[in-house]
Amino acid sequence: MNSFVALIQSKISYLCHGYKSEMSEDLLNKIIFPEDLKKLDLTELPKVSEELRQFIIDIVSTNPGHFGASLGVVELTVALHYVFDTPRDKIVWDVGHQAYGHKILTGRREDFHTNRKYHGLSGFPKPSESEYDAFGVGHSSTSISAALGIARAAVFKKEDNKQVVAVIGDGSMTAGLAFEGLNHAGIENTNLLVILNDNNMAIDPNVGALKEYLLDITTSKTYNKLKNDVWNLLGHLNKLGHNYRKLAQQIDNAVKSFLLKQSNLFEALNFRYFGPVDGHDVVYLAKILNDLKDIKGPKLLHVVTQKGKGFKQAELNQTTWHAPGKFDKETGEILKIKSDKIVPLKYQEVFGHTIVELAKQNENIVGITPAMPTGCSLNIMMKEMPERTFDVGIAEQHAVTFSAGLAIEGMLPFCNIYSSFMQRAYDQVIHDVALQNLNVVLCLDRGGLVGEDGATHHGVYDLAYFRSIPNMIVSAPMNEEELRNLMYTAQLKNHGPFSIRYPRGKGVMPEWKTEFKEITIGKGRLIKEGTDIAILSIGHVGNFVKEASKELSKKRISVAHYDMRFVKPIDEELLHEVGKNFKRIITIEDGTIIGGFGSAVLEFMSDNGYNPIVKRLGVPDKFIDHGTPQELHKECGFDVEGIIETVKLMTQPNLLSNVG
Amino acid sequence: MNSFVALIQSKISYLCHGYKSEMSEDLLNKIIFPEDLKKLDLTELPKVSEELRQFIIDIVSTNPGHFGASLGVVELTVALHYVFDTPRDKIVWDVGHQAYGHKILTGRREDFHTNRKYHGLSGFPKPSESEYDAFGVGHSSTSISAALGIARAAVFKKEDNKQVVAVIGDGSMTAGLAFEGLNHAGIENTNLLVILNDNNMAIDPNVGALKEYLLDITTSKTYNKLKNDVWNLLGHLNKLGHNYRKLAQQIDNAVKSFLLKQSNLFEALNFRYFGPVDGHDVVYLAKILNDLKDIKGPKLLHVVTQKGKGFKQAELNQTTWHAPGKFDKETGEILKIKSDKIVPLKYQEVFGHTIVELAKQNENIVGITPAMPTGCSLNIMMKEMPERTFDVGIAEQHAVTFSAGLAIEGMLPFCNIYSSFMQRAYDQVIHDVALQNLNVVLCLDRGGLVGEDGATHHGVYDLAYFRSIPNMIVSAPMNEEELRNLMYTAQLKNHGPFSIRYPRGKGVMPEWKTEFKEITIGKGRLIKEGTDIAILSIGHVGNFVKEASKELSKKRISVAHYDMRFVKPIDEELLHEVGKNFKRIITIEDGTIIGGFGSAVLEFMSDNGYNPIVKRLGVPDKFIDHGTPQELHKECGFDVEGIIETVKLMTQPNLLSNVG
Repeated sequence: MNSFVALIQSKISYLCHGYKSEMSEDLLNKIIFPEDLKKLDLTELPKVSEELRQFIIDIVSTNPGHFGASLGVVELTVALHYVFDTPRDKIVWDVGHQAYGHKILTGRREDFHTNRKYHGLSGFPKPSESEYDAFGVGHSSTSISAALGIARAAVFKKEDNKQVVAVIGDGSMTAGLAFEGLNHAGIENTNLLVILNDNNMAIDPNVGALKEYLLDITTSKTYNKLKNDVWNLLGHLNKLGHNYRKLAQQIDNAVKSFLLKQSNLFEALNFRYFGPVDGHDVVYLAKILNDLKDIKGPKLLHVVTQKGKGFKQAELNQTTWHAPGKFDKETGEILKIKSDKIVPLKYQEVFGHTIVELAKQNENIVGITPAMPTGCSLNIMMKEMPERTFDVGIAEQHAVTFSAGLAIEGMLPFCNIYSSFMQRAYDQVIHDVALQNLNVVLCLDRGGLVGEDGATHHGVYDLAYFRSIPNMIVSAPMNEEELRNLMYTAQLKNHGPFSIRYPRGKGVMPEWKTEFKEITIGKGRLIKEGTDIAILSIGHVGNFVKEASKELSKKRISVAHYDMRFVKPIDEELLHEVGKNFKRIITIEDGTIIGGFGSAVLEFMSDNGYNPIVKRLGVPDKFIDHGTPQELHKECGFDVEGIIETVKLMTQPNLLSNVG
Repeated sequence: MNSFVALIQSKISYLCHGYKSEMSEDLLNKIIFPEDLKKLDLTELPKVSEELRQFIIDIVSTNPGHFGASLGVVELTVALHYVFDTPRDKIVWDVGHQAYGHKILTGRREDFHTNRKYHGLSGFPKPSESEYDAFGVGHSSTSISAALGIARAAVFKKEDNKQVVAVIGDGSMTAGLAFEGLNHAGIENTNLLVILNDNNMAIDPNVGALKEYLLDITTSKTYNKLKNDVWNLLGHLNKLGHNYRKLAQQIDNAVKSFLLKQSNLFEALNFRYFGPVDGHDVVYLAKILNDLKDIKGPKLLHVVTQKGKGFKQAELNQTTWHAPGKFDKETGEILKIKSDKIVPLKYQEVFGHTIVELAKQNENIVGITPAMPTGCSLNIMMKEMPERTFDVGIAEQHAVTFSAGLAIEGMLPFCNIYSSFMQRAYDQVIHDVALQNLNVVLCLDRGGLVGEDGATHHGVYDLAYFRSIPNMIVSAPMNEEELRNLMYTAQLKNHGPFSIRYPRGKGVMPEWKTEFKEITIGKGRLIKEGTDIAILSIGHVGNFVKEASKELSKKRISVAHYDMRFVKPIDEELLHEVGKNFKRIITIEDGTIIGGFGSAVLEFMSDNGYNPIVKRLGVPDKFIDHGTPQELHKECGFDVEGIIETVKLMTQPNLLSNVG
């Protein structure tokens, strides 16, 4: 057995180090589709990997996007497309921000400079973009379930040799959905291959017991030695023909089932476990993947990779280089837009600083994030008061129910979850928080259209799905001061569930650190008096209205502007005033107009016998693709120009009776 | 070590078999609160357990409720309250339908006959009902997360000796939320005790790789012998005083970490694993629980129980006896209401038979249920075509994403999930199904107020939360024929995501097996012409409207009644007709009026310049407790009488201008 291992290893070593002088230049340029990749010799894969890596660095340095994840799986990507017969075989990339190499190798190299741009390539795999994208992704931890469905469909269709692969990171593996998928896959007789891409990172370092466990099995030498020997023996047996399965079974029974079968979390779930293997050894990966094709049943290959591999700064600071923006690919300097003006902070940073201020005053406050400490800026609190901050891993459901458990004992959790990820904790908000009327502050970062991340990440349903829930307070600040005051207000008293949603990106107040003032729950505010039309806004889009109403003043159209602050409870006094004084109303929200804030206004007007003409501006009833936020606001008709146009249309006397 | 084991076992044997002649009668009657239980001798616990079991049988036989689950944990319940200092110590019951014994021992014995009745005790633990109910439950798999929050709060409050226990079934353990909780708990330094109540059942037999695994470790004799020896040694060491931890640590290092630490799924997640132990040996349980109090850090006790224990029929047929309705406690006969008339089937049964009919005609149809084959009647298909039916365990998220994977390869999954459990798959419906416009038929059983299960189980948000999602078809049949036709229509063409929601309980058509007819998507139907007022109904509440409008005809009020069938796309032609011809409209739905079907009608009227007076009937903006469906419909004002009253109020000429 050992001599066999040695043989393989010497061969691999030769392959990895002996190629340089023998290769032709510019392999990547010859590859349009994976069929071109397959024409290369196994020995050329290291070079094509390096070229692919450099191509990603070249493009992402000038056209920002996700970075570290794709660099980490360059070799895995090359090996997968070299070995598998895509698009017939199916590769499901979990999350998908690591799939740039996959896109480049599957007909999209020429277009890759349009990545994440308006009308350009999506930053995530998307079946409508390419038949090589087996399943649409964006949110984490869907790949095992989706791939199992695809594999099970292949059974129905008697496509016996179809290979289905899910590539999932160790961060994504902490989510419950991934576990549910494993639990089911373990009893289905499919040839599903799960590749665990273990880089010990989500966007921030991975956390939780599973991570400790993976580290354990990755570093345990005795264990790995044993695994490798068995693995190599199985590989050897594969060559012996049809009897190999019986022999392999015997090994299973005699050795593996005793020493290994019970010894691995994945084998406990009935997966055959292989690894851990070096995820940057492309030749070895190709060999292993090729062998795994012949092994029936659910199996997991544990691949150890380094996020940011091949770009020094990205290897060293993986969180910063998850999605670094533009950078100098030679020096590794991240390029910031320079400005003489003091620019406002991001909303998330205002959240991050403010929760620390509040937590210093209120000892019951704790901070919770499901794997987004840097993304939501809870890392500021994590540094200052680590014992009061919880990163629970990619686990939105748990984040909310854990918060409920803390709250029922008198703690005051601020649970920060991106709006589109909060969809995953909807039941927990209803069943564990709202039904018990617990004091959990739900901070929804990335509320509204998020821009370049596109349809999977837009946080446009929250106002609608939260306002249906009894006991909920649903608020959205128009600027940093309002965000601070809502956070301050939320922790002053026992309010029950209190949601505060704010957008991705920068605020509007360079001097953001205002003094705290309590806000009366359910009270909006008048921003500007006017007579021709009332505009009711919720959240940051109020700033668009401010600008639009200035422009409209110049045209002698007098706009009354109210920042409602709360979708629920809605300011009834204010709405009575509006209902009595205005025949024309515009509602505006950075969210769906089906059931959202505008619908809340309609419900009030109907319930109270007012009959104004109401135009609801917001996200229409379709999925919005990626682009800059400005492009998307324009597309949806609620940018400054869109508001101006709508007001003009509505204030034309002859159109008064029909604005639908 | 072995002699110590023998000693304990002989003591236990004595305790279990020697009590009968020595005990006083009626121990249970003396127990109002757990403090009374604690006064008993350890040897009296078997008798009190038997009395408690008989009390549950007595009450549930005449006042229906959940049955098998509570019988299975009688001994565990007694042991927990005997050992722990509740309500200071916290017991979180997962799901909570097994907590009848807990309720009876914690001040609610006298009121227990009101269980699940209107204004009576809730069928689930509920903190507002008793301080002994540590956390409100109903949906599965929340207990670990909630208990971890409670335990972590105790750390903040320096309540060092506070014990926090989560009692979770093996069925609940398959849900992702439970895994997320374990993953986080494994790295938190709390004294959380998770008790895995392993009866190999959800409502139906448990499924999945985890179940196989649990069966494996429960039945492996060598393994258990080893565990027991180590356990007993640890128990022995506990008696030796303060040095025991150091000694125990040494055992961990020398023996346990090699042979056991890596060998258990839970230990892989950093839990100390104890068991499996006999869950019906109350004295042994009490002893173990007492010992576990002193062991720091997260730990899991694996208790093997039998669902329905002590009632023969319930032991033999656990699914039927999960919640059997009224029964004869002597003969074990389940009592059915006898009637000469042919009574309609339940909606779920119509679904169950119809999917089989359709699947015979359309080979792409497959059925998926997350652990509810009996509850949703997919068991009918499971019997007839097992290879095309999937019970994926308690895993709603996976059920939907797995369906999406099947659909993207051309299969046509009918994924049946109770409305209130669909909340747990909301993100998967948006992100994996709707965004890719996949042909998944989402059948929402238990849509609307479900009755006795109460607030945690009412399926009242679905119409609101689904209609915000682009690409979704949102429908609800008024009767069995409509349900069949919607199911038939859904599989005729590629419609994208198609939801069909129907209520719990019986339909209205004894002759349910009608011929299939295609329904045009987005078309409602006129049920009755009228002139004074239009009532627009969605779903089964249309039958209430039919009855009400008959009554109103007698009073010469002419009601036009439309069954809308679809909330989305809504029938615009029909609504134009209504908008043009009626000044007064009532909308009615068995769901929230915040953002639901009624709001869709308001949106249409507003968008199209109609100004009718609209009264939305449905579930108001509060959580509705338990009771019969009839009681709850009345409470919400949309039973027949409520509709009649609303129509009368709205058709009074002097109230025309103010109905809010």
